[in-house]
Amino acid sequence: MTTSTRDRLTAARGFLLFRRSVNDCKFLAVSSEPSPSVLVVRGCDVLRVPETGECWVVTNQDIVVVGNLIESISPTGSSVSPAAQIIDGRGLLATPGLVNTHTHSPMVLFRGAAEDVPVAAWFNERVWPMESNLTEDDVAAGALLACAEMIQGGTTAFADHYFFEEAIARSVASAGLRANIAPTYFSSRGREALDATVEFAGRWNGAAAGRISTSMGPHAPYTVDDDDLAEVAAQARRLGIRVHIHASENIDQTRSSLQRRGITPIEVLSRTGVLDAGVLIAHGCGIVPSDYELLATHSTTTSVASCPKVYLKHALAPMTPVGDLQQLGVGVAAGTDGAAGHNTLDMWESMRLLAMTQKYQTTDAMVMTTSDTVRLAMRGGAAALGLGDPDLRPGGPADIVLVDLGGSHHQPVHDARAALVYGMQTSDVRTVIVDGQVLMRDRQLLTIDLPEVIADVVDRVKRLTTIREGSSVQFYNP
Amino acid sequence: MTTSTRDRLTAARGFLLFRRSVNDCKFLAVSSEPSPSVLVVRGCDVLRVPETGECWVVTNQDIVVVGNLIESISPTGSSVSPAAQIIDGRGLLATPGLVNTHTHSPMVLFRGAAEDVPVAAWFNERVWPMESNLTEDDVAAGALLACAEMIQGGTTAFADHYFFEEAIARSVASAGLRANIAPTYFSSRGREALDATVEFAGRWNGAAAGRISTSMGPHAPYTVDDDDLAEVAAQARRLGIRVHIHASENIDQTRSSLQRRGITPIEVLSRTGVLDAGVLIAHGCGIVPSDYELLATHSTTTSVASCPKVYLKHALAPMTPVGDLQQLGVGVAAGTDGAAGHNTLDMWESMRLLAMTQKYQTTDAMVMTTSDTVRLAMRGGAAALGLGDPDLRPGGPADIVLVDLGGSHHQPVHDARAALVYGMQTSDVRTVIVDGQVLMRDRQLLTIDLPEVIADVVDRVKRLTTIREGSSVQFYNP
Repeated sequence: MTTSTRDRLTAARGFLLFRRSVNDCKFLAVSSEPSPSVLVVRGCDVLRVPETGECWVVTNQDIVVVGNLIESISPTGSSVSPAAQIIDGRGLLATPGLVNTHTHSPMVLFRGAAEDVPVAAWFNERVWPMESNLTEDDVAAGALLACAEMIQGGTTAFADHYFFEEAIARSVASAGLRANIAPTYFSSRGREALDATVEFAGRWNGAAAGRISTSMGPHAPYTVDDDDLAEVAAQARRLGIRVHIHASENIDQTRSSLQRRGITPIEVLSRTGVLDAGVLIAHGCGIVPSDYELLATHSTTTSVASCPKVYLKHALAPMTPVGDLQQLGVGVAAGTDGAAGHNTLDMWESMRLLAMTQKYQTTDAMVMTTSDTVRLAMRGGAAALGLGDPDLRPGGPADIVLVDLGGSHHQPVHDARAALVYGMQTSDVRTVIVDGQVLMRDRQLLTIDLPEVIADVVDRVKRLTTIREGSSVQFYNP
Repeated sequence: MTTSTRDRLTAARGFLLFRRSVNDCKFLAVSSEPSPSVLVVRGCDVLRVPETGECWVVTNQDIVVVGNLIESISPTGSSVSPAAQIIDGRGLLATPGLVNTHTHSPMVLFRGAAEDVPVAAWFNERVWPMESNLTEDDVAAGALLACAEMIQGGTTAFADHYFFEEAIARSVASAGLRANIAPTYFSSRGREALDATVEFAGRWNGAAAGRISTSMGPHAPYTVDDDDLAEVAAQARRLGIRVHIHASENIDQTRSSLQRRGITPIEVLSRTGVLDAGVLIAHGCGIVPSDYELLATHSTTTSVASCPKVYLKHALAPMTPVGDLQQLGVGVAAGTDGAAGHNTLDMWESMRLLAMTQKYQTTDAMVMTTSDTVRLAMRGGAAALGLGDPDLRPGGPADIVLVDLGGSHHQPVHDARAALVYGMQTSDVRTVIVDGQVLMRDRQLLTIDLPEVIADVVDRVKRLTTIREGSSVQFYNP
């Protein structure tokens, strides 16, 4: 073990011991063993994702993982401890994990149940009435199914925004993924509900051995009033967390805000202190040039999650102005949004669509190169969740995805970056390691009993999709 | 066997016996047995795709295939001949095959080798120079790899447009797929080359037990002069086949044609007799309202193949005007184009992107419903290739794809149509039957040795991607 890795591990343990002082200790996987476990991925190729420039592949490497960190990456054939767990990586490409920076994970319960409708009808006639049927148990089951789908697809971390946040957190903790969880809040729910989200955010931030973090989760400037936004922002600053909010989701919302209030949704976030607190903005397709100065001022604490599949399906032009935001220094990342719109939680598809729709929107085939796209999905995603540098390197986090580019749809592989961006399907993911723990090995999920989860979910379907007159969680009229 | 099915089989055999009189008899799979083989898919659900209205699913059916036709579809539990081959379809959904209506199958050899460049550089700096390296053996190997990928993805028929057409035809014949093969022709190749394509088209049309048909394949109005187009059209009429051609690929080509010649590419097709011969137009994104009257006049013999992934990647707006063309009565179908642009031959992705980009382009989330999209891909695809009604029904062709919607990315299935359009990946395809022959069973390819094909292809990569100064098949300057 290198000195620097040992220092990092010691520091990590110190953090964990500190976290023991909060409750939910059952999810703090602090080891009582004298030495951390060792895991070796043998003979894989390794994708490197630098901060700038081209991504590249180093061939035939051994990745040695000690505890939850990468100890070394070196040419294959290194000698390892006989106690080490060995994963055969030959013929596979190791990549950092994908990060889904905006979803509502339990909405996998509703995939396919709201097709071919515009956004207002999608909310008011389909999704919000169906969501009024949800119980905490439904959400736990849905979140677990979502975790299974994400692990199977090589997503190692996600930013969630939903109700029954405790149930989601427990599902994430048991699944072994990383997540930033924002409890959804509408002002229509009242101050007590807001206080409950604050309490959740404080209690769960750093839980599950640090794999779970939290954000405040006001739904949107059009469903949360300014006083509540200001309170949310103040609480986020107090807790040292950020705000995850839908804002400027589309240009109609921006126009509506300008008409009703004379300011854009981004200006609302500024006036209420949300920008100052640090924010993960979902969608941002309605961000306009007059917002740019504000965003530039807050660029280091602002990320925007772009989810192009739902903009296509809802026929909502334009897309997130990705290039402009990056020019401002604002972090941009990819997400799926909930599966009631996106149908799957496939982040390969999200990243591919982001690249393609940005090329199309800017009429420039040379933007969003394969390297830039991989970087946005992996480094941009990690930054949006406040995670560290995700690149696979000694001392880095052991969040590793092994993908198989051997299929007929990838061969011959002239360029692994192009294969990752334009050819991947989730079934090409073979093995997934998060925080040093193997969550899927050669397509076998190790932390989730998927047949049981699916059977549980299917039992709930009929009740969940029954639409009851007058019953809805909210009304969409931004 | 019903009388009508027996009549159809007899008619089909008569056709085959007629085809024996041409050469290439080795691909004519005329059975010498007294009775045709029987195949039963037990207990599957069946997707029905009507000419209009909603698609629907009939559950728990047995599909009985006799020879190359569907004999019956009835509630599971029917008694069948002890000699019948049984496929367990429980938990699977049977659908018609997907039809890839525009591709250059051997270009799988170049996937990922020409990324992030605009269309002129894509042709002139990457693809056409690389293609000048191709030998007939390379094309045979590439076509076989493409066939493997298409079978694995549930594509049962495709329209190909490429060089070394004999090699492609042999690969298709051995793989067991259906294909319409158009030998690519540029005027720069001279009259002898044109005559050779005519000879190929005549000789191979109806070969491989009728699974192979042919079209004339002039490349485009900007690479084939009017005299050659007129000759091609005349030969197509003589042979009773159609013309497969790139035309109005993008709006720049239409503008350029108007500027150079005062007429649109579609008007060129009209003046040279190509529209009269019947035509499969690749792309058609540059079709303009002034073309509509001509297209309406030829609507019953015209199809347009739309391949949205490559328009996105090449940043070429607008998309094919799908809704307008359908209003004119022109057939519209989906395709991938070559994998050097599309990366894969995934028709599920093509159909999904077609639906999404049409919603986006028309700013109407209600167009291209899931039923309309499935219909376009399946019925539209079959029509574009001159195949009959592909719906799964007694007397229909035994081109059947069994898909598994049991994965975490599909569950729970509220709507199988939505799952097919918005959630499918090719790995969800379990079993593929074409013309009554099982080409893949439970993911095992039965007609292609994929590892051998991939090894063969990989050996060719370095030579194929070497770009030699001044060596190119053509120059792009439409």
